[in-house]
Amino acid sequence: MTGAAAAGFAADWTGRFRGNTPAVVRPRDTAEVVRVLALCADAGIAVVPQGGNTGLVGGGVPLHGEVVLSLVRLDQMDPVDAEASQVTAGAGVTLRRLAAADPDLHLGVLIASRDSATAGGAVATNAGGLRVLRYGPMRAQVRGIEAVLSDGTVVSHLAGLVKDNTGYDYPSLLAGSEGTLAVITRVRIQLVPRLRRLVTVIVGVPGLDELHALARQAMRDVPGLVSAEFFTQAGLDILVEHAGLAPPLPSPACVYLLLEASGASALDDLAGLIGERPAAVGETAADRARLWSYRERHPEAAGFLGVPVKLDVSVPAARWVRLASEAAGVVADVDPGATVVTFGHVADGNVHVNIVPAQPADGRHEDAVFSFVASLGGSISAEHGIGALKARWLPLARSAAERALFARIRSALDPTATLNPHILPR
Amino acid sequence: MTGAAAAGFAADWTGRFRGNTPAVVRPRDTAEVVRVLALCADAGIAVVPQGGNTGLVGGGVPLHGEVVLSLVRLDQMDPVDAEASQVTAGAGVTLRRLAAADPDLHLGVLIASRDSATAGGAVATNAGGLRVLRYGPMRAQVRGIEAVLSDGTVVSHLAGLVKDNTGYDYPSLLAGSEGTLAVITRVRIQLVPRLRRLVTVIVGVPGLDELHALARQAMRDVPGLVSAEFFTQAGLDILVEHAGLAPPLPSPACVYLLLEASGASALDDLAGLIGERPAAVGETAADRARLWSYRERHPEAAGFLGVPVKLDVSVPAARWVRLASEAAGVVADVDPGATVVTFGHVADGNVHVNIVPAQPADGRHEDAVFSFVASLGGSISAEHGIGALKARWLPLARSAAERALFARIRSALDPTATLNPHILPR
Repeated sequence: MTGAAAAGFAADWTGRFRGNTPAVVRPRDTAEVVRVLALCADAGIAVVPQGGNTGLVGGGVPLHGEVVLSLVRLDQMDPVDAEASQVTAGAGVTLRRLAAADPDLHLGVLIASRDSATAGGAVATNAGGLRVLRYGPMRAQVRGIEAVLSDGTVVSHLAGLVKDNTGYDYPSLLAGSEGTLAVITRVRIQLVPRLRRLVTVIVGVPGLDELHALARQAMRDVPGLVSAEFFTQAGLDILVEHAGLAPPLPSPACVYLLLEASGASALDDLAGLIGERPAAVGETAADRARLWSYRERHPEAAGFLGVPVKLDVSVPAARWVRLASEAAGVVADVDPGATVVTFGHVADGNVHVNIVPAQPADGRHEDAVFSFVASLGGSISAEHGIGALKARWLPLARSAAERALFARIRSALDPTATLNPHILPR
Repeated sequence: MTGAAAAGFAADWTGRFRGNTPAVVRPRDTAEVVRVLALCADAGIAVVPQGGNTGLVGGGVPLHGEVVLSLVRLDQMDPVDAEASQVTAGAGVTLRRLAAADPDLHLGVLIASRDSATAGGAVATNAGGLRVLRYGPMRAQVRGIEAVLSDGTVVSHLAGLVKDNTGYDYPSLLAGSEGTLAVITRVRIQLVPRLRRLVTVIVGVPGLDELHALARQAMRDVPGLVSAEFFTQAGLDILVEHAGLAPPLPSPACVYLLLEASGASALDDLAGLIGERPAAVGETAADRARLWSYRERHPEAAGFLGVPVKLDVSVPAARWVRLASEAAGVVADVDPGATVVTFGHVADGNVHVNIVPAQPADGRHEDAVFSFVASLGGSISAEHGIGALKARWLPLARSAAERALFARIRSALDPTATLNPHILPR
């Protein structure tokens, strides 16, 4: 595919990253992936592997004229292995299909882009999302992988062994490598029991200290807990005004904690935890979806006011309150007129910082927030990856020795610099 | 340390692997590890990193005259980070100390050698053990690592971030690498809530099909399940005769399932599962320890009859019954007079096959069992690693392409072939 038909593959869905490509190649099986890579490596042509193209950091689009290797046609899914609660899927199978593969099972990773995001892309970027506190990120779901190196070597380990100490765990290495080490063609995924009797609550809380303590208490005292998310009144106000949402509680709070738990005692456990605090409770699918919409629409909130700078950072648990409460001030120091919307995941240290800048979006916001996060020992990318967007700030999060190690691993696996050569340092 | 004082470091605890070493070096900090490795790499001297020397495959002893780099003096442990439920420990800290670091927390990995096995060794070999079905193996407990490459480079990522997508996950790569890629000097470990109200049961079952089905049902219906182990009447008979254990149940069974669960409903959940089957139940620490002794003494059982060949294999869940029921017959085909004791972990596909040979232990037993396991799509080393013992059979479990990938990774990290050069293929 070339020309106008290729344009949709050359830009990301947010429109922030637009490249151009001489060709989009959409192989139908692993053997075709091998042939494409062999041709490109021989000819010195760089390749960007692409899944559902739902990334947020420009890691899957041809910003430097690369060939786009779209894996969406690798969409075969084997029958679920009921004994192991595992399934083998082509890289192009969407997360929604994985999650629906068996009526009694579910995918441990739940992300907003699940209708388009693919198994291969989610593994390659180690997707996180709304249930990491219970099941871990995508890397933790992987029980096997098939991948093609840039020289055409196919490595495959798909038997789904739970215990296997026979060499290096390259599936874990490829998970999160953002298409720079190999092209993932198939994955073996551990599914989890489908949760029953889910209860969702939104609690109004007067401050982030109390919110964090309450989330920690939930981690301890609510055995069925699967999610602990937060947002603020500032973000909610935008959604109420621009997205037509009714406020979840009769009176405004400072911050809101969304908790979800499953099981026979979930409602009692959550009620005991919340006590006299103002709260909305959802038990039906419709009520739960309504409560989740406050959290799940937050990524759009800043976009109602302008073109946002979207940052995604994490810190050690003990510093989460500082990050969540001081991020807006750190932005204000370099852009006093900016609007800052914070929301995200409480229990795993992860805050999304979306900024509507008043000053030019020339990197000053990233400089400020990432330096602050680095001073707290944190990560400049909790979930989204480095991609094109964050490469220049990687030294804030990773030492020269670590970056040199990355380069050594990368040269070993892709000596021709064929795979996504402009992402991460070489 | 040299000469006679070094001898204890040159042989493994089983006595099967005896080497010799020009020197045992026991650095007190990471800087000393750097200096030792720099000296050895420069001089072309091979090094075997060693933790508690509790390995079973000869991966930690100097079988080819290597210098032994013992990490046991790296035994500093930081205070537990209560907010994150994590702790940073030197490589030489024992698993028992890690597990006892906080009265409300525990280590997710529980192995028989916990008094001697070290944090660094357990990560380097990706130790498994008795609670993998609940918490995963040692790799799953790692939230950060500090390690020294053979060129003296120190890489460190110890902040304990739960979500961090900023480059390659080298801690997962080093986990299970058996000392061939880097020397692990410190680890950041996620601890788990200390389990309360533990209940242990041993159930007598007439056959392996029913035992496996019962274990699967327990995985589904007993939310507090942490262990599902098995052993057979044949192994029990040996322990009754030679170790003085009284039988756990009034009448013999064909096979025995040991289940352990925690929480308020554990006893009811287990009772409901067991139904009318013969069972012994332990709720006190003493009773639980007594029941566990049947399982935990099984590794010794074959040793009462001779010098055993100890194999440790796993298969996909759907083939576990075949492995567990046919392993003895596979051995009998090549050694009709051999005694075979099988036991191990039901829920994760892992069976320990201990053989008291009648024919020479010249590899015929490994050939037979490993070929059988490979035909089932299984692993020739579920927990113990490849080490010196299994290197020649690795091609049964890993393709030429995979082994070449291992070699590429290895050359990238240890180009001077300083680290454990005789373990795994180069």
